[in-house]
Amino acid sequence: MTPFAPLQNDTFLRACMRQATPYTPLWLMRQAGRYLPEYCATRARAGSFMGLATNTDFATEVTLQPLERYPLDAAILFSDILTVPDAMGLGLSFALGEGPRFATAVRDEAAVAKLEVPDMEKLRYVFDAVTSIRKALNGRVPLIGFSGSPWTLACYMVEGKGSDDYRLVKTMLYSRPDLMHRILAINADAVASYLNAQIDAGAQAVMIFDSWGGVLADGAFQEFSLEYTRRVLAQLKRTGTDGQIVPRLVFTKGGGLWLKEMAALDCEVLGLDWTVNLGSARSLVGGVENGPGKALQGNIDPNVLFAPPAQIAKEVGRVLDSFGVPYQGSGTGPTHIFNLGHGISQYTPPENVAALVEAVHTHSKGQRA
Amino acid sequence: MTPFAPLQNDTFLRACMRQATPYTPLWLMRQAGRYLPEYCATRARAGSFMGLATNTDFATEVTLQPLERYPLDAAILFSDILTVPDAMGLGLSFALGEGPRFATAVRDEAAVAKLEVPDMEKLRYVFDAVTSIRKALNGRVPLIGFSGSPWTLACYMVEGKGSDDYRLVKTMLYSRPDLMHRILAINADAVASYLNAQIDAGAQAVMIFDSWGGVLADGAFQEFSLEYTRRVLAQLKRTGTDGQIVPRLVFTKGGGLWLKEMAALDCEVLGLDWTVNLGSARSLVGGVENGPGKALQGNIDPNVLFAPPAQIAKEVGRVLDSFGVPYQGSGTGPTHIFNLGHGISQYTPPENVAALVEAVHTHSKGQRA
Repeated sequence: MTPFAPLQNDTFLRACMRQATPYTPLWLMRQAGRYLPEYCATRARAGSFMGLATNTDFATEVTLQPLERYPLDAAILFSDILTVPDAMGLGLSFALGEGPRFATAVRDEAAVAKLEVPDMEKLRYVFDAVTSIRKALNGRVPLIGFSGSPWTLACYMVEGKGSDDYRLVKTMLYSRPDLMHRILAINADAVASYLNAQIDAGAQAVMIFDSWGGVLADGAFQEFSLEYTRRVLAQLKRTGTDGQIVPRLVFTKGGGLWLKEMAALDCEVLGLDWTVNLGSARSLVGGVENGPGKALQGNIDPNVLFAPPAQIAKEVGRVLDSFGVPYQGSGTGPTHIFNLGHGISQYTPPENVAALVEAVHTHSKGQRA
Repeated sequence: MTPFAPLQNDTFLRACMRQATPYTPLWLMRQAGRYLPEYCATRARAGSFMGLATNTDFATEVTLQPLERYPLDAAILFSDILTVPDAMGLGLSFALGEGPRFATAVRDEAAVAKLEVPDMEKLRYVFDAVTSIRKALNGRVPLIGFSGSPWTLACYMVEGKGSDDYRLVKTMLYSRPDLMHRILAINADAVASYLNAQIDAGAQAVMIFDSWGGVLADGAFQEFSLEYTRRVLAQLKRTGTDGQIVPRLVFTKGGGLWLKEMAALDCEVLGLDWTVNLGSARSLVGGVENGPGKALQGNIDPNVLFAPPAQIAKEVGRVLDSFGVPYQGSGTGPTHIFNLGHGISQYTPPENVAALVEAVHTHSKGQRA
């Protein structure tokens, strides 16, 4: 067990646990990314995305970069959602200016039969990065670990790369649901081991990105995505290296129609994209004082960051007000973690991020006044 | 007024009007398309997509092709959703294997100032095609006319082509909502004139495709998409050349979260994509016997068509059963028009479409037995 510095800013963790905070904490999906010139400089030194992600020093450096610029309330491990299938031997790479790609795709019974939960030692570089980042943070803010969801990993494993129609993975799903279930079961167990190892390495919260859950049909989502997210959650450790509870966050992009069903997941926080009304989501799944419920995370449209600061502040206010005043008592109640509804665009002007962060802190303090 | 042959199969129109039918009528979005070898042959003769769409004989020929293969219950005008901005002078083209592209994009105040409702004579080729197709159908099934929604047209007009992040159009929306509103107002009035001219030319139903409504944030959807769909609907003619009511269909892809608000639209049918549960949608907006309500259209995942016939039949059954037994009385009540949740893929095996059509007719007759 590694001794880490005590946490100075616990607003994110408190909001995850539905406890009151003096303002609405925020972080940004993909906050360490290409919109930051210093990130691009480090990536250039690393030579490639995987060169960046697999090098502990580089991964630590870029994770901390956005915190140097903005008073964010959490850090998130710099890595990719596809490290697990890479460790399964599928050969992940990122061509410059393109998305991820696997050298080997999983499209038939023989390929599925070969899959197994990878030896976690192959992902040691991730766990080393977690420990290194946690040390470098020195207690400033908590560190979030993460993984892709079993279904989202399966999309990439079958398609071999990003897709705009998910034809190959859905062909397997509808033609050979038995093969799809086998992939998903292996993915779920692998993701659970992976997240547990991140917790052991120092992660203070863990997030499951179901980036492609929203492309599934009603019925298929429950069977092929939600069920395996549940399988991951059931296996996760509840406490971290310091004995603290490790909140679990689940984000299904395009999953707003299934919020009621997601409310039954054994996790603390549900992430929402910008199509969801936060007030409606709070009514549906936010819970009441001292009763069960989920903290909500999200959900401003990342494209708001292309507007001038005054418009950004206005849209931030709309999002915060749509959630309403968060719980302010000494027990638990509905809480909100501000975030984008999806990853930040590489074209975002960094100064506009500063305007957003400022607006969130100011407006959310005002809500509590 | 052109005299057309009497309609032989009115199941689609009856279902649109929430009247009982002996089975659930169906048609398929993009049913005249590249998955059909005969379509590809005609397109090759036409030289280009616009060559096909602007030639009355070719457009008539391809519209009827799927009806020769399958007992579908409606035909839809062969055209593109972007003909209206093309008539505004933006220069629409389709490179082979790519999506639509405009020679001129509308990105600043000067470009917006130049926009106006186009002279409908520039779209004469569309209205001629409607009349020609209606004649060629000879009363077999009704003919649906269509347009893109004001917002969906605006997406393409600002982006200049398809987009995966809608950054440019949303930058305008968030930075200069005044410009966006001006584009949308012009688009709405143009779309209304365009659909009215299709009705005058012989269209028996009209559909508004809000293909990109679902990319908007909650709040922005209502302000920038729904409001302008409403503006179109308010201007539409209620009866066609034969004095029959012309049902109006609205399809917002990704709009499932806003169904309650869409229920207030002055239209007869709401189209749904595959993420929506038809049973829930029926409860929300389908209405009751002899009361107000919307007919529902949709919503099988087009990727189901890549599975073998037995799986297709099973998934068809799930979709029909999720809607439940449609209204069977002599007044009005909840009805369902079977369709895909989005356009058919160009890679679809044509024989699988036959299996789907057969399954819809058989299963839906069984529901009524």
